[in-house]
This record gives sequence, C-alpha cells and structure tokens, in this order.
Amino acid sequence: MTAGLVAGVDIGGSKALAVVVDDANRVLGQVRLPTERGAAGVVATAAEAVRQATEMAGSTLTELTAVGVGIPGLVHPSNGSVSHAVNLDLGADPVDLSAALQRELGVPVSVENDVNAVAVGAHRLAGARRGDLAVLSIGTGLAAGIVVDGSLHRGSRGGAGEIGHIPVDPLGRWCSCGQRGCLETIASGSALSAAWQPAHEDGSSVWSAAGAGEESAAAAVRSFGAGVAAAVRLLVLAWDVEHVVLAGGVTGVGQPLLDVVRSELLAAEAGSAFLAAMRLPERVSLLPSQSPVAAVGAAVLARDSLLESFTAIPDTLLPDSSVDEMSS
Amino acid sequence: MTAGLVAGVDIGGSKALAVVVDDANRVLGQVRLPTERGAAGVVATAAEAVRQATEMAGSTLTELTAVGVGIPGLVHPSNGSVSHAVNLDLGADPVDLSAALQRELGVPVSVENDVNAVAVGAHRLAGARRGDLAVLSIGTGLAAGIVVDGSLHRGSRGGAGEIGHIPVDPLGRWCSCGQRGCLETIASGSALSAAWQPAHEDGSSVWSAAGAGEESAAAAVRSFGAGVAAAVRLLVLAWDVEHVVLAGGVTGVGQPLLDVVRSELLAAEAGSAFLAAMRLPERVSLLPSQSPVAAVGAAVLARDSLLESFTAIPDTLLPDSSVDEMSS
Repeated sequence: MTAGLVAGVDIGGSKALAVVVDDANRVLGQVRLPTERGAAGVVATAAEAVRQATEMAGSTLTELTAVGVGIPGLVHPSNGSVSHAVNLDLGADPVDLSAALQRELGVPVSVENDVNAVAVGAHRLAGARRGDLAVLSIGTGLAAGIVVDGSLHRGSRGGAGEIGHIPVDPLGRWCSCGQRGCLETIASGSALSAAWQPAHEDGSSVWSAAGAGEESAAAAVRSFGAGVAAAVRLLVLAWDVEHVVLAGGVTGVGQPLLDVVRSELLAAEAGSAFLAAMRLPERVSLLPSQSPVAAVGAAVLARDSLLESFTAIPDTLLPDSSVDEMSS
Repeated sequence: MTAGLVAGVDIGGSKALAVVVDDANRVLGQVRLPTERGAAGVVATAAEAVRQATEMAGSTLTELTAVGVGIPGLVHPSNGSVSHAVNLDLGADPVDLSAALQRELGVPVSVENDVNAVAVGAHRLAGARRGDLAVLSIGTGLAAGIVVDGSLHRGSRGGAGEIGHIPVDPLGRWCSCGQRGCLETIASGSALSAAWQPAHEDGSSVWSAAGAGEESAAAAVRSFGAGVAAAVRLLVLAWDVEHVVLAGGVTGVGQPLLDVVRSELLAAEAGSAFLAAMRLPERVSLLPSQSPVAAVGAAVLARDSLLESFTAIPDTLLPDSSVDEMSS
C-alpha cells in the first residue's frame, strides 16, 4: 500500500515552509511564506502554503492523501490542538489546528511539535544507513527530538526530550521553569546572549566578535559550547543514539558552532577514558540549514499516521490484499 | 507459535537465582544458590541452578527451549560474552558465557546485562496495563534499564541508560570515570556511605542511625535522596517514562528509601509548576524485594530472542502457518 502525495508544513515565528513529497520523500513542490500570527493567521498561512506547494508540484489538493504540520508549542497528542506557541501568539487556550486546517483543505491533517518533525525529517533524509538519532534544537530554549529503531519516541505523555530542564549546576542561573541551573540556562540562544557582557542588542554578532578576538564574546561562546557539549553527552549517555544533530535558530552561524562544541567535547574527554570511548565529537553534526527538514518530517509523520489508520482495519476487510503483501 | 518452557538466571556477586517459567511467565520452579566466582565458577553455578529449577518445575533440560542469563558487567551484544564483572572476578578478558553454558546444558543461551533483565522483568510482571518504564538500579554504581513500547531499549552500541555518568554538579566529587560531579557520586550506595561522616564500617546502618535522629546520618540520607530524586527527574524529562522503579542493593532498606526520594521530589517541585505538573512522586516505586524479577526478565529476553530467530525465517518456509496466524 502506498500513500501517494503528502504535504508537510513547518510553521515558524516568521516564516512557514511547505513541501509536497512523493512516496520516496522526493520534494516535488516547495514554498516559503511569511507567517501570519494568531489562530486564524496560522491556519490561513498553512493552508495557503500547502495550496501553493501543491500547485508547484503540478498537482491538486484532491490528489493529496494527508497533510502534516510541524509547529512550536504544546501539541495535544490525540487531537492535534496547539497551545503555548508564544512566537505565534497562541496562548494557553488550545487552538484546534488539525480540525480547522482539515476543513480548509479537505485532507486529513496531523500536527506534531516542530522539534519532533525535524528529528523525523533528519532521520529520513539521511537514508536507511543512519541509526538512532537525536536532534538537539537550540533556539530561545533547548529540547531534543528522538528517533529510535526508525520511529519517533514521544514518551508516555508526549513529553520525551525535555532535556532543557534537567538541572546540571546547583549554583547555576535560575531558569524560567523555576528550577536552578537547567541545561537551557547554559545551552540556548538566550543563554549565549546573556553571557556576553556588557549586554548587547544583537546577540547573533557574538560569533563575529568572538572570531575577531573580543574576550568577553569568546568566553560567552566557549561557555555556550560547553553547555551544548553537556547536552550532547547527556543524549548519548541516556539513549546511546548514534547521531546527535544540532538544529534550531542558533545553528544559523554554521561551522563555528560545530567547532566550539567539538572542541569542548574533546576538552571534557581529556580526563576520562570512559568518555573518550564514546567518540562524541564524531557523533555530532549540523542540520543542513537550507534543507526543508522539518516540513519533510511533518509530511512523513502525516503519511505514517495515515498508513497506521489503514493497518488498523483487519486484513480480511481489505479485498485487494494479497499473500505477497501480507508476508512482506 | 509458542516457546514452551524457558529458564532465566540472575547471577549476583553472592547468590544466583534461577527460575523456569511457562508462556504466561508463571514461575514453575525457582532455586537460589551461592555464586562461585571466576569464569568456570559462574558457568557451573548457572548450570546447576538451571538444572535444579527445571527439576523443581517437574521438567527436564530437553523440554527447555531457551535459557537467559542476567549478569552484572559488560555484555557483548552479539555473542553474549562478558567482561568487567568485578563482583564475579571476571576481568577485562571477555568470558564466552553464552557458548560455555550452551555446551553445558544443550539449550540456546542468551546473555544480558542484569539491569536490562530487571527492567524487562519489572515490565512483564506488571502486566499489560503498565506503560513505558525505567528501572533505576542503585548499587555500588548507578544505571538505568529502559523499556519503551514494550521493548528493551539497548541503544545503538548497547550503552543506553548509563545515566550514572552524567555530570550534574561542576563542583561535585570526582567520579571513578574521570569526570566531576556525576550522578553516581551522589546517588549510589558508595556515595551514601561516603557522605556519612565520620566514616563508618557498615554503610547500611546509616538508615537506622538516621531514623534514630543522628544528624550526620540524616544529612547523608537526605543528600542521597536528593541525588536519587535528580536521577528520577532526569529519566522522566529525557524519556517521559510513565514509571521509574527503584532497584539494586540499596533498595533492601525498603520504605525509608522511597520516603526520602518522594520527599526530595516534592521539595524540588515546590518552586516549579513545570516540575509539579510531571507528578514525579506518583511515578516512582520500589521493586518488590522478594520477587525473582531479574531472573524472569532474563527468561523473557531469552524467549524473545528465540522467537525472533524463528520469525527471521520467511513465512513461506513455515508449512503450518495459516492465514489466521499471519493476520493476527
């Protein structure tokens, strides 16, 4: 059984990116639109992006079998509603994104947290060679998406990968979650900005300042790199994932980020043969910045969800199922 | 397809416990023997325990379809050899336990790390109701065994659950692994003994001293409880397991351990609505101390391994497979 054409949308605070992919996850159409905020705006943006990507793929909405959405915020696992997506002006009241978009497009819609969508996209785009994988998403906050044995691991209540709120320093900074010294307080974009003293308006220029030899900027970058290295170590010790892929807004800087994380991983293993045997610097990589990974991941999850709903029908009710298919 | 009778052996530093279970994991025979150390001693102990448990089950070795072994130490995932089991006098040279025991008993033998065996046993004994589960094994060291979606999660290189060596305090004690402030330095039996000052010969009496109001003992117990609470929090934030089951030598003390861990979890969530929403005190429990959980887990893993080797045979080569079986 195949699913045919599937669309995926990655909705970010400033831009939404939609793709239409075939069964081999080849991207047939791709479009990027500015995001309108608020419940109505998010639905309208996603719908329009899917329409344009479908047209670009030379297809029509009636040919789509499913649409997947990846979105920051708290996604209710059973009904696809979304809350607490601060960057999209969605608050504590859940917005029923799945139902609204389904009404708009006439296609089944599944919704997933964006970090999980990136993890699935990264795993599929890497091909069958790649083993268990964690995506470490470093933006304003810090969280991980986990793919083990080929499947997304959501956890028993949808909360797996919340490693940003694991405390790693009893004397560290207070975190927005009310705990002290969370990983997020040293390994996030906000932590990097806060560490560059005196305060600067544009946090992203800390990298160029560090490159130019400014001492406070270089210290902030090293401390941030050590924080990300601690998150990588935690992911490998806890799950033994084969690969940790760095993603999220902070990775826009590219190679300098990977360099400082690898350098801090090497420094940490200098005193520990145990840690050195884990070969952490080899396991860490950067998500390609120009690739529509989250949108492809959302499309893959929508297809999986569709195929699962079909396999829930007993085989005896599927007249065209042959013995060959059943034993494959 | 059913596997019939399967034996499981849990080999500890002082005692080995063997069970024979049927397809419903009912224990038909159970025996406990003192462990002989060294490679030959371990093989002889395991073989004799399986023989006696089989006899007690009213059966014979020829009726067993598989034998599983749970053992402390580093187990090679593909061939079942064991090294670095210090409590059993097994050193850096791998001992081919699987092959040696198979020669002795004439039955296929699979070998698994004991923490993983406990995790699988705890999951099966709890019945189908129970969701994702982590066993936190607190002995001389600290490690976790993880069951997600009904299966043991070993990780890409067999190292999943090594959370004892995640650093959580930059100014903490140096760990045997060469890092500083590892979870194991605050949440293990050795950490508990070390914290009770002045030094005492029998570390286990720290609990009775704390119960009797001795201040240094009470402080050591609280600090240890906070360490175990940190490990519980880490397991839930990373995996979102539904249950964390405390196991290992330290749990022999029973309820006082659970009380101090729950009390420290409550203290930690007092300042964090985020943490309080996780309902950590409800998720933590104690492994029943008189139940042969590790031996049953080893038996279950041996059966799974046997059935996997059968399903690796294409269906068309199994003449007695009916359509009913294939679609179930």
